[in-house]
Amino acid sequence: MKAASRTIIYISDGTGITAETLGKGLLSQFEGIEFRYVHYPFTDSLEKAAVCLRHIADLNQREGVRPLLIMTMTDPQVSALLRQADALLLDVFEAFIGHLEQELGQRATRVAGRSHGQENHEYARRIAAMNFAMAHDDGISSADLKNADVILVGVSRSGKTPASLYLSLHFGLKAANYPLIPEDFERDCLPASLLPFRDKLFGLTIAPEQLHRIREERRPGSHYASLDNCRFEAAAAESLMRRAGIAQFDMTARSIEEMAVHLLQAIRKRSHTDS
Amino acid sequence: MKAASRTIIYISDGTGITAETLGKGLLSQFEGIEFRYVHYPFTDSLEKAAVCLRHIADLNQREGVRPLLIMTMTDPQVSALLRQADALLLDVFEAFIGHLEQELGQRATRVAGRSHGQENHEYARRIAAMNFAMAHDDGISSADLKNADVILVGVSRSGKTPASLYLSLHFGLKAANYPLIPEDFERDCLPASLLPFRDKLFGLTIAPEQLHRIREERRPGSHYASLDNCRFEAAAAESLMRRAGIAQFDMTARSIEEMAVHLLQAIRKRSHTDS
Repeated sequence: MKAASRTIIYISDGTGITAETLGKGLLSQFEGIEFRYVHYPFTDSLEKAAVCLRHIADLNQREGVRPLLIMTMTDPQVSALLRQADALLLDVFEAFIGHLEQELGQRATRVAGRSHGQENHEYARRIAAMNFAMAHDDGISSADLKNADVILVGVSRSGKTPASLYLSLHFGLKAANYPLIPEDFERDCLPASLLPFRDKLFGLTIAPEQLHRIREERRPGSHYASLDNCRFEAAAAESLMRRAGIAQFDMTARSIEEMAVHLLQAIRKRSHTDS
Repeated sequence: MKAASRTIIYISDGTGITAETLGKGLLSQFEGIEFRYVHYPFTDSLEKAAVCLRHIADLNQREGVRPLLIMTMTDPQVSALLRQADALLLDVFEAFIGHLEQELGQRATRVAGRSHGQENHEYARRIAAMNFAMAHDDGISSADLKNADVILVGVSRSGKTPASLYLSLHFGLKAANYPLIPEDFERDCLPASLLPFRDKLFGLTIAPEQLHRIREERRPGSHYASLDNCRFEAAAAESLMRRAGIAQFDMTARSIEEMAVHLLQAIRKRSHTDS
């Protein structure tokens, strides 16, 4: 059945982030359909599942076309109840858990909500990394750079802050970032406070046209934002980083996630903790 | 086959975040096995896939037990090559894409890397939200609170900053946060700058014992971190928020993701943009 718009229902006994992440990837493969989204996170009881079922029945009546239900659910009873919904059901855990049980030679525990590391040490590590990233954003402080896992350098608005925050919040890396400014290009030398930490430096580059667009939004009509100046800064930064032997990563047209994973790969390679 | 340790290989033509998120959820269902992780993001050509295959063959020989391969791959040719690996293969897209094609009445585009919204407006929205969150962290500025989508309040170290950053970076919400401090409890009144924005306020609470542990790490032995003071502040904040009619969310033992999704649900309900 084909329809120009379709409702996607995410149901999970946890946050639903797994279901949503997968759904986003799958649905991005279909063009020309307008998807609407409904979210039922923390659906961890038969009572809550029954409420969902009623909403789905209402929605079916209203829309005249059945929704797509993308589900991660550990409790088999709740899962069984939701299978009664008139919907295309993609049961994410069910699709794989049997194969895993067989391969690993043990039964799944069927306990909900273990994906996100509520364990104290994991949580504490991410929070500590995030505090570090906030305190070492944009060169605010260089007091504790020796404890950084990674230091991102690049011109203003090249994407250092979102990349640092993502690396810290998701991967628990202490990510500092430090701007390269016109004074650095005049001296033709890295900022002095970075020199002891060359092995932690990663450079972000960005196409001058995109840099110009981003800076125009913040300071329209300024020299800072002008295409000429963006061309100058981008070229000067790339040349400075090349001569300093800093690996460069092009932020242009990349999402925050893509950039963070590219950097993570390079960091892992450098520290030999991963192949 | 049962083994006390197993290697998990994530392969994707994109970031691999979808595969990893799913893998984390599934593997958290199995206890007593030590999992090691290897990551092959951006595996978007037959050449790169061939390199992975060789690594997997080496690994098989070294470990004597086949790895688990969790894969999101859009290109059917690359996918077919990787199926030759001696591994338990969980092919995430393959498991569902056929059902979706049939239900939606069209073929998947099979174009890689569309999950993370590289589209300019989506990227710009998340970056703008992140800049807003950084500028309005911990009450630094209240200049632009009228443009906030949400304002989190709570005592120092109750989790306001990670929740704000997650809401901004992932959901593109302009999330400010504002601390409740002993002066507020003495005056027994919300900070004046928040009063015009009651409809955007959400309160975070936390068990005094957990608050004590977190504060001890920052200022060991201080009055600020003492269990007595944490008890006093937690109780005073809850009472102040209750009387001000602010919905409260308990951060205790919750992951950043869980907290963010709980808040997102409440924000959606309040703004009626979602059922």
